[in-house]
Amino acid sequence: MHKRVGRASVKYEEGVYIVNSASVVGTKEGQGPLGHLFDRVGSDDLFDCNTWEEAESALQKEAVYMALKKAGKKPEEIQMMFAGDLLGQSIATSFGLKQFEIPMLGVYGACSTCGESMLLGSMAIEGGFADQVVCVTSSHFASAEKEFRFPLEYGNQRPLSATWTVTGSGAFVLSGKHSHGDRAKITGFTVGIVTDYGLKDSMNMGACMAPAAASTIERHFKDFQCGPEEYDRIITGDLGTVGQQILLDLLREKGYDIADVHMDCGIEIYDADTQDTHAGGSGCGCSAVTFSAYILKQMEEKFWKKVLFIPTGALLSKTSFNEGQSVPGVAHALVIEHV
Amino acid sequence: MHKRVGRASVKYEEGVYIVNSASVVGTKEGQGPLGHLFDRVGSDDLFDCNTWEEAESALQKEAVYMALKKAGKKPEEIQMMFAGDLLGQSIATSFGLKQFEIPMLGVYGACSTCGESMLLGSMAIEGGFADQVVCVTSSHFASAEKEFRFPLEYGNQRPLSATWTVTGSGAFVLSGKHSHGDRAKITGFTVGIVTDYGLKDSMNMGACMAPAAASTIERHFKDFQCGPEEYDRIITGDLGTVGQQILLDLLREKGYDIADVHMDCGIEIYDADTQDTHAGGSGCGCSAVTFSAYILKQMEEKFWKKVLFIPTGALLSKTSFNEGQSVPGVAHALVIEHV
Repeated sequence: MHKRVGRASVKYEEGVYIVNSASVVGTKEGQGPLGHLFDRVGSDDLFDCNTWEEAESALQKEAVYMALKKAGKKPEEIQMMFAGDLLGQSIATSFGLKQFEIPMLGVYGACSTCGESMLLGSMAIEGGFADQVVCVTSSHFASAEKEFRFPLEYGNQRPLSATWTVTGSGAFVLSGKHSHGDRAKITGFTVGIVTDYGLKDSMNMGACMAPAAASTIERHFKDFQCGPEEYDRIITGDLGTVGQQILLDLLREKGYDIADVHMDCGIEIYDADTQDTHAGGSGCGCSAVTFSAYILKQMEEKFWKKVLFIPTGALLSKTSFNEGQSVPGVAHALVIEHV
Repeated sequence: MHKRVGRASVKYEEGVYIVNSASVVGTKEGQGPLGHLFDRVGSDDLFDCNTWEEAESALQKEAVYMALKKAGKKPEEIQMMFAGDLLGQSIATSFGLKQFEIPMLGVYGACSTCGESMLLGSMAIEGGFADQVVCVTSSHFASAEKEFRFPLEYGNQRPLSATWTVTGSGAFVLSGKHSHGDRAKITGFTVGIVTDYGLKDSMNMGACMAPAAASTIERHFKDFQCGPEEYDRIITGDLGTVGQQILLDLLREKGYDIADVHMDCGIEIYDADTQDTHAGGSGCGCSAVTFSAYILKQMEEKFWKKVLFIPTGALLSKTSFNEGQSVPGVAHALVIEHV
């Protein structure tokens, strides 16, 4: 059962269970502060493949394989898969997941895709269309630089506002039935609205996405008639240090102070001082692997009982950037509770 | 109420209503056999914009604007929008729809996106998460050639198996409540599985997608315990003449002969003899505008009472093609009935 509490905000009565999950990351992420928590750290960012794109597909394949194994499920027990990535035409997803032969619904929300896939996956279960679904997203530093900016060989300079695309994939098995060992449950969501403040700097994506995160968080508070005190943590995807400050400022203007409970996956995943990542981590993989390896662990250990998880996406392409367009953002919010 | 009749097949008892819809196309589509049926035919394929990408965004914006107007709805009465296109990072969608400020869920299924967006949109309504949603997709000949093949200025030769990307956008307003003037209703779906027969020819996408269409249609017949005789038409998205023949052959091997009821939007939209389009039309816009302008009209006029609509997508990118990858396909099926 569920209750609509706002235009695109829904509260689940029992909740949709996150049965299990897996995170697979690259070497740099393995060396970061969360390195010891990931399920697998690659010894080489090519993951035994010939191209960066194939490597990203390998990340997704491995993450889904491990998540299914940890959940004790076979691919044929899964009714639908919700998946996407950052590459043009989501090729990391198509090539990474075809082997599983699971009915597939591709989603695109830039780096908010982890949130969007779990939002839609939980809807499919809560609505009675599936018993069990898999949600998966990925990003890869090298394939993303090639897709959005410059080939690595060019060695371009990165301003301090730039973020570093996470090489990683996070996969989640969701179910409508509670079982022993569930990691947490999804108990509500707020769908994001595309928000554009007119910023055009693809090297400052935190600033481009912060208005979308602020819009979704504000709408969420109003729809759920709550405030920051409702949550142990309010966790954005990949705003980084520049975007975080803007988010806090924008929400203060709207009357909400979330500074005490705000956390950003992009800030957590690297040690900016020693890893040269500047404003933080980004990419679909950033929030996905941090959610699987760190956030869900904190909830299992009851350090946090209820968090608001808001992966954030910057809706640009190389073409839109080169044509002088702005960078709109979108952010979807999920309420996550411990079980 | 709905009933699950297979792994990813669902039958809706009452159905989700297609309140209204709109189609906006380019000059070539306007000159084709369905030209007189489209809601708007552009006088110039730039649609008063500076770039092909902006023109594609303008198509989506116009299609949604017209669909809402025809349905007598305001943007604020819509709870969610399901939308996507073929361009890298779905920029036609992000830039075309941000003005409506409707909560947005981006989808990607290549040219199957029209089916995927209505499948998810109908699930959102049937599951009780929204009262009214908008589903929209687009493609543009010039932006697609640039994205997938060569700039138009290069003037490359096209083999006879190639299809011509439709310049067009189709938008649909769905609702859970029946009202006077509804165009038709969605009464079931089968989610597609990514299918890859190893074909690598991006100039023969019909052949690449036909196995996915055959897989979905076969699974649909088995799940719904029916056959071709159940439908007045079985309508694929953009297989074209080459793909159509392969689909008919593949299904005959599986024991189903759909030749008498099969129709393909890509074959209907152009006159191949006089319009130099070779195997037919393609692109997200192909099935979307044909569905809005022609298929729904046939159902309103009671020529057809029940059709199976299966938009087909080829999951390639310029990068995957250049790296020598195959072209997997995906196809989602929707059961459409007259009201």
